Amino acid sequence: MNALTRDMYAKLASTLNDAAGDFGIRAVILASEGDHFCAGNDIGEFISNPPTQSDSEVAKFLEALLNFPKPLLAAVKGNAVGVGTTMLLHCDVIIASATAKFSMPFTSLGLVPEAGSSYLFPRLVGYQRAAQVFMTGESFGAVSAKEMGLVAHIEKDPIAAATAIAKQIAKQPPQAIINTKALLKSGSHDAVAAVMHVEFELFSMALQSEEAMDAFMKFKAKKE
Amino acid sequence: MNALTRDMYAKLASTLNDAAGDFGIRAVILASEGDHFCAGNDIGEFISNPPTQSDSEVAKFLEALLNFPKPLLAAVKGNAVGVGTTMLLHCDVIIASATAKFSMPFTSLGLVPEAGSSYLFPRLVGYQRAAQVFMTGESFGAVSAKEMGLVAHIEKDPIAAATAIAKQIAKQPPQAIINTKALLKSGSHDAVAAVMHVEFELFSMALQSEEAMDAFMKFKAKKE
Amino acid sequence: MNALTRDMYAKLASTLNDAAGDFGIRAVILASEGDHFCAGNDIGEFISNPPTQSDSEVAKFLEALLNFPKPLLAAVKGNAVGVGTTMLLHCDVIIASATAKFSMPFTSLGLVPEAGSSYLFPRLVGYQRAAQVFMTGESFGAVSAKEMGLVAHIEKDPIAAATAIAKQIAKQPPQAIINTKALLKSGSHDAVAAVMHVEFELFSMALQSEEAMDAFMKFKAKKE
Repeated sequence: MNALTRDMYAKLASTLNDAAGDFGIRAVILASEGDHFCAGNDIGEFISNPPTQSDSEVAKFLEALLNFPKPLLAAVKGNAVGVGTTMLLHCDVIIASATAKFSMPFTSLGLVPEAGSSYLFPRLVGYQRAAQVFMTGESFGAVSAKEMGLVAHIEKDPIAAATAIAKQIAKQPPQAIINTKALLKSGSHDAVAAVMHVEFELFSMALQSEEAMDAFMKFKAKKE
Repeated sequence: MNALTRDMYAKLASTLNDAAGDFGIRAVILASEGDHFCAGNDIGEFISNPPTQSDSEVAKFLEALLNFPKPLLAAVKGNAVGVGTTMLLHCDVIIASATAKFSMPFTSLGLVPEAGSSYLFPRLVGYQRAAQVFMTGESFGAVSAKEMGLVAHIEKDPIAAATAIAKQIAKQPPQAIINTKALLKSGSHDAVAAVMHVEFELFSMALQSEEAMDAFMKFKAKKE
Repeated sequence: MNALTRDMYAKLASTLNDAAGDFGIRAVILASEGDHFCAGNDIGEFISNPPTQSDSEVAKFLEALLNFPKPLLAAVKGNAVGVGTTMLLHCDVIIASATAKFSMPFTSLGLVPEAGSSYLFPRLVGYQRAAQVFMTGESFGAVSAKEMGLVAHIEKDPIAAATAIAKQIAKQPPQAIINTKALLKSGSHDAVAAVMHVEFELFSMALQSEEAMDAFMKFKAKKE
């Protein structure tokens, strides 16, 4: 199900940072193996090894995402839960299969939105739609995600479709693409970085709350 | 028609502030009796008793709305005019009946948008759609409001539907919900507070203008 | 095809500035003669006479657009390329014919978005849709533009339809309309002015790049 562990965040961060510096790489596609894109943060790790702002693999991954200077695409099939959806808010072009299901059930776990999603999601879909999704924890499908403008296309083979668009973008003058992405981000970059810090603090406090402990216990009981 | 008077604003403000402080209350639904949600500010009161920024029931209501820390839902049937629509921009989840009709005809009355709507509405629906609605004064129905992302669902019984969602949200961990709403608002709260002040000044000036007096006279003549 | 030359920018700027100051003018419609709205900046002029921020007709036109205090409508038929589309982001109400085709192929020419479009377009249509349009250079039609909220109506005779709406707006109390537009712009005006400066610098640098020279040569070869 591709639940993310600390090691996986670290690998993602270093891969993105290497791609940013590698002159030969024009675009990156986030894709998955198996039936599901990403089940979110591993719940066991939330308890045994909670991330902190100043020194954690999660923070390094989010920083790499926020600052990635080249086109970032994503190919999503199956479930994209928690950070599996919030990482997409930093992507430029997202292709989904009809099976894609997006959810950010932070409040249901006693947690709060992360990865800048409390800033980026309402600005993408409007405050009211974002409030409803975050407050109820409800998921939404590929068609809704396309209507919202999160997903560019719904395709049977999202990796092939994302690769085709990545190739199209890779043919463009590379400095123009990098400068265009920087311009598009310039009006929100610092605000997103700031909100990520606040989210992180509230998230860390929430992880230690009784609310979250109860929710995690219920989650584990349901899975067993 | 539920035109709002100073007493009604004061009652709304104190009810919201009490609900904010009451630990037993998890969510609030704004709903109406009769066929129409709210006809806006009472036109007679605009003339006899114009609101001022520093000391008015309207200002207290708007402040209570802006700062309400818990989920705020609304159930709208029939007409929502002026502040009847602009108060919705501060709500988290809005359910409308098919009869709902939204309008913000401030300019037609020689007035300007209020309640933060000049900031919130273009950010919800895009600048061009907001400009058209404000400049022409034209109304829009439930289907448009849903497409715009203002309304979550169109239901035959909006109060029942809003209550069902409020109950769903009330089951979530309460601190997580409050912190999530605070995060969602954090990127715009101060900007909205600032724009409300500017709107209030322009609105108060407009109330004393010849344009508005003429428009009010025409409005009264049309009603009689 | 209405490619814009320096003289045309200067004429547009002075016409807008005159209209802003003329008490008898309540609204302005940007319209075109011939089959196409605007083919963008003349490519030959980009090479022979590149615009600069501090002293150019382009900069004067963009400043006039940004600061135009009255309702600005547009009637678009056929192609709206480059600045032909980005100028629309500053308009209040846009009517398009079914033949309208919008594109901002800056990156394909080795250039970057201009006229505040790197700020305004993602805020209108969402970051992901904007990133895709800018990075691929692909065009979009009237139906998409209406879904995005850029276009208010698709009409057979866009000039007649825009004139009807302009007349409707012209009947409104004029000071209320001017103050409403000022309020709608107040939350973004300074940010747009600032981003325009950054865009201009990156654009000027890009015009002198090898990437852009190659792209211009290809463009000219394709046309001949």
